[in-house]
Amino acid sequence: MTQLEYAKLNKTSPEMRYVSKKEGVPPEVLRKRVKNGSVVILKNSRRKIRPCAVGEGLATKVNANLGTSMDRVNVNLELKKLRTAIQYGADTVMDLSTGGDIRKIRRAILRNSTVPVGTVPVYQAVIEACSRKGKISLMTKEDILSVLEEQAQDGVDFFTVHCGVTQDVLSRLKKKKRLIEMVSRGGVFLAEWMILNKKENPFYEYFDDVVKIAKKYDIVLSLGDGMRPGALVDATDRPQIQELIILGELAAKARKNDAQVIIEGPGHVPIDQIESNVMIQKKICDNAPFYVLGPLVTDIAPGYDHIVGAIGGAMAGAYGADFLCYVTPSEHLRIPDENDVKDGVIASRIAAHAADIAKRVPGALEKDRRMSFYRARRDWKSQIKESIDPVKAARYRKSAMPKKSDVCTMCSDYCSMKIIKRYFR
Amino acid sequence: MTQLEYAKLNKTSPEMRYVSKKEGVPPEVLRKRVKNGSVVILKNSRRKIRPCAVGEGLATKVNANLGTSMDRVNVNLELKKLRTAIQYGADTVMDLSTGGDIRKIRRAILRNSTVPVGTVPVYQAVIEACSRKGKISLMTKEDILSVLEEQAQDGVDFFTVHCGVTQDVLSRLKKKKRLIEMVSRGGVFLAEWMILNKKENPFYEYFDDVVKIAKKYDIVLSLGDGMRPGALVDATDRPQIQELIILGELAAKARKNDAQVIIEGPGHVPIDQIESNVMIQKKICDNAPFYVLGPLVTDIAPGYDHIVGAIGGAMAGAYGADFLCYVTPSEHLRIPDENDVKDGVIASRIAAHAADIAKRVPGALEKDRRMSFYRARRDWKSQIKESIDPVKAARYRKSAMPKKSDVCTMCSDYCSMKIIKRYFR
Repeated sequence: MTQLEYAKLNKTSPEMRYVSKKEGVPPEVLRKRVKNGSVVILKNSRRKIRPCAVGEGLATKVNANLGTSMDRVNVNLELKKLRTAIQYGADTVMDLSTGGDIRKIRRAILRNSTVPVGTVPVYQAVIEACSRKGKISLMTKEDILSVLEEQAQDGVDFFTVHCGVTQDVLSRLKKKKRLIEMVSRGGVFLAEWMILNKKENPFYEYFDDVVKIAKKYDIVLSLGDGMRPGALVDATDRPQIQELIILGELAAKARKNDAQVIIEGPGHVPIDQIESNVMIQKKICDNAPFYVLGPLVTDIAPGYDHIVGAIGGAMAGAYGADFLCYVTPSEHLRIPDENDVKDGVIASRIAAHAADIAKRVPGALEKDRRMSFYRARRDWKSQIKESIDPVKAARYRKSAMPKKSDVCTMCSDYCSMKIIKRYFR
Repeated sequence: MTQLEYAKLNKTSPEMRYVSKKEGVPPEVLRKRVKNGSVVILKNSRRKIRPCAVGEGLATKVNANLGTSMDRVNVNLELKKLRTAIQYGADTVMDLSTGGDIRKIRRAILRNSTVPVGTVPVYQAVIEACSRKGKISLMTKEDILSVLEEQAQDGVDFFTVHCGVTQDVLSRLKKKKRLIEMVSRGGVFLAEWMILNKKENPFYEYFDDVVKIAKKYDIVLSLGDGMRPGALVDATDRPQIQELIILGELAAKARKNDAQVIIEGPGHVPIDQIESNVMIQKKICDNAPFYVLGPLVTDIAPGYDHIVGAIGGAMAGAYGADFLCYVTPSEHLRIPDENDVKDGVIASRIAAHAADIAKRVPGALEKDRRMSFYRARRDWKSQIKESIDPVKAARYRKSAMPKKSDVCTMCSDYCSMKIIKRYFR
């Protein structure tokens, strides 16, 4: 039985019990949310991992993207990046490999990952069609479904499917004259196939078949935003919102057929449009969990897009987004290395936590209370232990030890917290 | 004549003319805002620098804190930090030195700074009282005023004065039982003096004398937030808002007497309280420019507080804050080094720019449009040139050159922007 089938029968699955305990939400509340689709539980029914739940009233989750490109193929590096991502707190990872033996890489990541793993199956379908048949246009419905089935059997926990890039959406995109037409790789593969074949998006046309596979393995469908803006000036335009409407309709269809769904969102979005983007997604998609890719609140900071994404992610999360896809400092410049993965995960974790405080997620503010309790007492050992990255905090502290050990070199004897304590007991 | 005197006579000063051109705001609009106090122009009338304006309708400004502590005294390092701060785009700096020959350090910073310099004069008054008279409680009104006069003559452009830490506010603080009573160094010096002497805050009691000096040299008074919360759980409490009310009253008094004022703000503030904090400051202080110290949206990320501050600063700026004090990765851990200054300034610049887009500051979005124009064309040279830190962007790009020079190693041949261009001409 899928999680949705359990919920529809008002039964609590073992996965729900685990999540309920971990998130501090009563099982019956969680079950109701799974039933109405505002919460999903990520875990392929064949996979032996702890499930991860995403959605209403739960802690905001962070995903880290991994994967090779044709320019960089190194399975060991990807496994190192996987370990780094998990070490610093990624709740899920996605294998977005497009270079080398992507089947082998995916299986290595699945074997080594203790967290749910997502993929974008159209990558494999396109790459195989190109290598076997010579061009993308010769890819068939069967090619796509067989990749979905293969990846499902491998144990993939969630699939991004760009099922909202329809011919209708593409014609609206042409009329719009965006600065950057499309930046979604999966979305562009499908657009190219559709334009060359003059046919409808196969993920849209054969959505029922996609849902059947998702149900069989209880894979969460992440409805991809092929139209996500890649430039601030393109944000929240007609193609983007048209696609969102279609995703809302498909989300309802998937749930009806016992497959769990989440919705992917932008992208490059100015600060003043973030709240509306979250609100409209929640309304149009009947409160399906929202998985945002950033958002990036400026285009001009390559090298620092983890910070740009943390600003957008914290705001989106506070307004109700449920799942943040990390952005690394290497975004727009190169494939990320291990350090980029670390920086990206930590920046997103900060954003998710700051959002959780605003969303009143149980236990979130308690961490800050604990840290500040130790800070007021200038208990450095405990402060470092409570830090999001104790290694960096300890390195900073050790690099500049004060003469008096209960303060730091910033204020030294003039530590405000130390002075005022003399008068406030 | 001070800028306020010019504005009250409906005259445009040379400084207003310069600012008007730089910010793209008509001189008569700017003048009106200086007159009603929603814009201030930072520049000691004795100083030979370009003025910097802060407030309504202008680009959000960034300040970088410099200065020694008793644990770390190195004038050359402070001058290096000054150059780094200006190089990466700090609009102003503050010399917060409390260690070594602070007079000499201040003068060196003033000599070498091309941007306005702020100070917290009570530091010098307290340090000198302690060294000459043996204890802080022996500091007199005359000691304070003579330091203000000396620093004014040196050319300091703006003074932080913690004039809102009154006996009434302190009694409310005692009742409140905060997790961390106070974190403002200047605020704590005054609180200690007030408690020991059982007297009112001299900056409050003798505010008219402070205003006279400010007027004489056209120094902007930055009314300090001695009650700013140092822990999320202490944010937006009665002592903080009580102090803000007093600052609003004193701001009106200063303007009436021809001294320009800005208001300092928190501090550690959860995301969901930022908008209200900006709104209440604007209302209570009659639209005086708001100078926020962060805000920091979580307590748990020492080592990454530049990111935490960028989240809060971007939001505060978008809601109407005018001036962001940077936070470096070393906050809560040690005195910042040169790299910390760089990281802090860049993170704050990102926040300020993202806020400016949301605030519709003239020309802000144009930078993003230009970057995305080059990005769509995969013009790497121009993208790097338009980046907030071209050196880092170039280093990232060079560290991983793709086989085909028009893409990057992230997507390689599968670059979405490159593929879609074939079909959208």
